[in-house]
Amino acid sequence: MKVARVVGNVVSTVSTAALDGRTLLLCAFVDPDDEETGGYTIAVDTVGAGAGETVLILDEGNSARQVLADDTAPVRAVVVGIVDHLHVEPS
Amino acid sequence: MKVARVVGNVVSTVSTAALDGRTLLLCAFVDPDDEETGGYTIAVDTVGAGAGETVLILDEGNSARQVLADDTAPVRAVVVGIVDHLHVEPS
Amino acid sequence: MKVARVVGNVVSTVSTAALDGRTLLLCAFVDPDDEETGGYTIAVDTVGAGAGETVLILDEGNSARQVLADDTAPVRAVVVGIVDHLHVEPS
Amino acid sequence: MKVARVVGNVVSTVSTAALDGRTLLLCAFVDPDDEETGGYTIAVDTVGAGAGETVLILDEGNSARQVLADDTAPVRAVVVGIVDHLHVEPS
Amino acid sequence: MKVARVVGNVVSTVSTAALDGRTLLLCAFVDPDDEETGGYTIAVDTVGAGAGETVLILDEGNSARQVLADDTAPVRAVVVGIVDHLHVEPS
Repeated sequence: MKVARVVGNVVSTVSTAALDGRTLLLCAFVDPDDEETGGYTIAVDTVGAGAGETVLILDEGNSARQVLADDTAPVRAVVVGIVDHLHVEPS
Repeated sequence: MKVARVVGNVVSTVSTAALDGRTLLLCAFVDPDDEETGGYTIAVDTVGAGAGETVLILDEGNSARQVLADDTAPVRAVVVGIVDHLHVEPS
Repeated sequence: MKVARVVGNVVSTVSTAALDGRTLLLCAFVDPDDEETGGYTIAVDTVGAGAGETVLILDEGNSARQVLADDTAPVRAVVVGIVDHLHVEPS
Repeated sequence: MKVARVVGNVVSTVSTAALDGRTLLLCAFVDPDDEETGGYTIAVDTVGAGAGETVLILDEGNSARQVLADDTAPVRAVVVGIVDHLHVEPS
Repeated sequence: MKVARVVGNVVSTVSTAALDGRTLLLCAFVDPDDEETGGYTIAVDTVGAGAGETVLILDEGNSARQVLADDTAPVRAVVVGIVDHLHVEPS
């Protein structure tokens, strides 16, 4: 999984009914110091995450289909949690 | 998923009948500011996207096969939507 | 597989029961000289690894589901071992 | 899919019968301007591509197995077409 | 597939019986000029490769399970061949 910050969303008419009505979140990956790394992805929301929130993203098709409870959904990246705390041990 | 801009297409005789007659779009990934990142991919069109349009790309084999409704198609990246609006929250 | 150092953990309420009670380790990839590469991932612990330990990470959904003995778990990266020794041959 | 230029081949005795007699092409990825990006991969030939030719590479296990018509072949990247023309729209 | 040089090995007690007794090779990716690229991976040996040898790595779960002849092995990257010759065409 990866940690990312929700920075917006994507409005798009998709060609697949399985994603109709789903919120597509625009997510910027962050490093353990909470700095954006420059990478980003579009993930299907499953937790009601909003802009500015730090989230956990799971990026694997079979996992995403399990989370959406839809065996045939064409989907790969899903937001599976809101990060309450990113605990980094002092080194 | 990733957001990309359609910048052209690829003309190729492919070795697999499942892709015959499919349009292979040359897509340049863009960041949330709509700037090209330097990466690109070739994706099968499913929405009639044209050059200059911003699209949503889904890059996973089982998803792509669902979208094409062909359980055995050798395919991984498909264009699944045209992006109407990329909404970035002010930070 | 990749070698990484455990640098912390993530506290998050996840949307999927399969990960309830699992420890989500924040792991920084290291190179053969044990230097951090700048990349990192969040992996599900299966060996009781703690901060500062060097671990082996397996990053594939079907493998992760085998390791967790849960055929439908939405998971991709798991810590599968603690590295006792990273042996680099002199070149 | 990705576009690449065939720059050579690999001679190797492989541990798996499914790849015996297959040509393993050394392929350098190119960008839409036909410049090499610095990345490369080894792909199984299925179209009789030779050095200097620009090809389409499909990099997904299940797709590759379909193209080779071998459900259990251990393979991930295959050359599925020779690129006749890479059409880039003027921006 | 990728070409890599074996630079060492990893000694680790892994949490999964399927990998017990397997040699985990530390492999540095090389480019067509045989220069290390800076990337590396840990791959399960299947050919008896030793330090300094150039090898072919196949990095896909289902392929790796076929090569190990173990349908449920949690594994993704395997060394499937020793490279006898990396033939690069003069451009």
